[in-house]
Amino acid sequence: MSEYKKKFVLDEERIPKAWYNIVPDLPEPPAPPLNPATLQPAGPDDLLPIFPPSIVAQEVSAERYIEIPEEVHQIYRLWRPSPLIRATGLEKALDTPARIFYKHEGVSPAGSHKCNTAVAQAYYNKLDGTTRLATETGAGQWGSALSMACQTFGLECKVYMVKVSYHQKPYRRSMMQLWGADVVASPTDQTNAGRAVLAEDPESLGSLGIAISEAVEDAVTHPGSKYSLGSVTNHVLLHQTVIGEEAILQSQDADAYPNVVVGCVGGGSSFGGLAFPFLRENLAGRAKTRLVAVEPTACPSITKGAFTYDFGDEAATTPLFKMYTLGHDYMPPGIHAGGLRYHAMAPLLSHVCNLGLMDAVAVRQTKVFDVAALFAQTEGIIPAPESAHAIRVAVDEALKAKEEGVARNILFNLTGHGLLDLSAYDAYLSGKLEDYDHPEEEIAASIARLPKVE
Amino acid sequence: MSEYKKKFVLDEERIPKAWYNIVPDLPEPPAPPLNPATLQPAGPDDLLPIFPPSIVAQEVSAERYIEIPEEVHQIYRLWRPSPLIRATGLEKALDTPARIFYKHEGVSPAGSHKCNTAVAQAYYNKLDGTTRLATETGAGQWGSALSMACQTFGLECKVYMVKVSYHQKPYRRSMMQLWGADVVASPTDQTNAGRAVLAEDPESLGSLGIAISEAVEDAVTHPGSKYSLGSVTNHVLLHQTVIGEEAILQSQDADAYPNVVVGCVGGGSSFGGLAFPFLRENLAGRAKTRLVAVEPTACPSITKGAFTYDFGDEAATTPLFKMYTLGHDYMPPGIHAGGLRYHAMAPLLSHVCNLGLMDAVAVRQTKVFDVAALFAQTEGIIPAPESAHAIRVAVDEALKAKEEGVARNILFNLTGHGLLDLSAYDAYLSGKLEDYDHPEEEIAASIARLPKVE
Repeated sequence: MSEYKKKFVLDEERIPKAWYNIVPDLPEPPAPPLNPATLQPAGPDDLLPIFPPSIVAQEVSAERYIEIPEEVHQIYRLWRPSPLIRATGLEKALDTPARIFYKHEGVSPAGSHKCNTAVAQAYYNKLDGTTRLATETGAGQWGSALSMACQTFGLECKVYMVKVSYHQKPYRRSMMQLWGADVVASPTDQTNAGRAVLAEDPESLGSLGIAISEAVEDAVTHPGSKYSLGSVTNHVLLHQTVIGEEAILQSQDADAYPNVVVGCVGGGSSFGGLAFPFLRENLAGRAKTRLVAVEPTACPSITKGAFTYDFGDEAATTPLFKMYTLGHDYMPPGIHAGGLRYHAMAPLLSHVCNLGLMDAVAVRQTKVFDVAALFAQTEGIIPAPESAHAIRVAVDEALKAKEEGVARNILFNLTGHGLLDLSAYDAYLSGKLEDYDHPEEEIAASIARLPKVE
Repeated sequence: MSEYKKKFVLDEERIPKAWYNIVPDLPEPPAPPLNPATLQPAGPDDLLPIFPPSIVAQEVSAERYIEIPEEVHQIYRLWRPSPLIRATGLEKALDTPARIFYKHEGVSPAGSHKCNTAVAQAYYNKLDGTTRLATETGAGQWGSALSMACQTFGLECKVYMVKVSYHQKPYRRSMMQLWGADVVASPTDQTNAGRAVLAEDPESLGSLGIAISEAVEDAVTHPGSKYSLGSVTNHVLLHQTVIGEEAILQSQDADAYPNVVVGCVGGGSSFGGLAFPFLRENLAGRAKTRLVAVEPTACPSITKGAFTYDFGDEAATTPLFKMYTLGHDYMPPGIHAGGLRYHAMAPLLSHVCNLGLMDAVAVRQTKVFDVAALFAQTEGIIPAPESAHAIRVAVDEALKAKEEGVARNILFNLTGHGLLDLSAYDAYLSGKLEDYDHPEEEIAASIARLPKVE
């Protein structure tokens, strides 16, 4: 075997000093969110009841770069810069001339990219006088990241965890409790929203939509409390750009600037975080990298959804956002990639996609686990089922490169490890995994129910 | 907050090129293992039925340095150099003038230091023509590391997993299966040893001693098969010295050569791996680092055991080793640090300890989880219960430094993460954790049953 470099780790001094806001670089601005009552553009005032002023300012910012505070930088240094790793084992197994790299965000304390924004949000809330954050979590990636961040900055944290996950994923719950969070199974009897659901169905297993409604109600009814969200909004995508900024430097160190960048999409924050800095280089004419978002066929918001105004939550309590959506009351099948089961796509990412600046594809669950297992076997790292969606397309790209005999550079986002998802692998290995195609009629019906805005 | 450096990560080129064998540097050689039938020194020929020639050569080597093969180095590069991290959050919480560092071995594919030797053993077995390895595992750390390594080098892997763990730790089992291993719950009906146990007690939950007997029998009765062990033997301690060699370089980079080095001990391999390179520096008069091994009060082999000849396994099938032992039929209480429940201590480490070149202390389970939780809350990383034994003593050392007003440098081994041990944290958080002191009479009785050799 010949000598090669496997890991590209930046010095701490080269962790980016600023997050990148793509808005000012886009050929046209995204459509504004609307107040659902007036259908007028929603401004900062619509957001201040639930988010602190610093976060609202970032949400609507037109600045190209926003400095990462030193206090956040210090916490980032626990796991950042995350390594860029060359997937030499996978390359060999595929016998491809392509060079495959992955950005390993699973090295963070909670095991995913979610910590990048959790730490920033906890910091700004602390700065603005918030003493307590309320949030929802489905599978638990986001809830555990925010619990860790609140612990770090001395904030209380209340997590409404979807009841089915609360019982199915006790390890995620223990993790949040270890980091000091108060975790409850949603629906609860602690909010009007929760009580209403329980009155109708005392056995309700909950949903992300219900948990969001409970967390928002909690935040606006408790003094000193704010709400915190782990994806979708502009400020979350902003905080995640630390991934892409690091990846650009590391790709240059590796002498392998990517021809293709691949990432999975649920709400869209990890993909935006990796892709937007590369898109900046494209827009400035310095590169021509293809950007590919990968979603599950069970929840294909970009590839099968409508680009229109919709609510961010199932209960229709948020402002209206222009985005790719399957309809806010669309209920995706229960796939193992719980983090990709959101009915819509981040408005900013939707806009970028609608401008034709990136691609999207949908892939099936069993095909995803095929390469998840291959990756674990050849690279030694067990990927989160969400991240494995990106591996699927990275592998397909590498096989295409082989067919074409081209030595392409492929970069994908390993958004998290799958150590707390091993029951999903168990299902795969024992042949119990099912595929779900997008239920066309259900999607059409829920899109038909959307509010008519334009 | 002031600027500080948190992580010390070596360039790949600075991963040590050789493992360090402390034997030639010791003031006197360790006592040889004995053939239990003849009571004559056991030589290489006694080991060749179960280990391949390259491993046997390392087991008895008198060479000071043994080159790490490039093929092993390439796999190491997936996670090595492991970071040396300054525990600034923990220091702040303790308000100590001490500087606390930890070597984070939990970043490996299987989540612990075990991968360091698993990869080496799989490589040498492959080189010597072995096609299949058999081993035992208790909690699953070792079994998962060896499964990963066998997958990497294309060897079959059979793991005898103690039955109680097989059912209690399904995630560890899935991990091994994902890496291609054939995992069975021991006692099985596939070996004479297993059948004998089942004949006596069909409901037996198994023990590490039984699983060892099954794995050894499997290896000697299957063509192309060898046996593989995850701790205790000289070659395992040798492979783990990559930890200490890296830590010396990183401590120098951090300008914080340790005054105290702390590690947990079960079989003793991770501690030997970290401590022996530092001991070399002590013996050469270049440093005066205090080396402290930490064991559980439930299984206090060094602090309460006898230094004498005993068998390595419960079934008394191995050669006799001179070591600290509680007696091979001593059954430690069921603590959550499953990796520290071995009745004896590595012969080489025992010898070093008997020469007065290191210290040992025993700590209680609840006190261990107190600091495990504190570490998770201040550093963001959830430690394995085994590793938390070292944290306990590192914290005690830091508090002593505070009392004395001394700015001491403390280094401990974070041998693994606790992501698959969250049920133990759950028990701790809900107040269900119990303490077990060493049962003096049981220990005295099992020591009294030892073979009389000298």
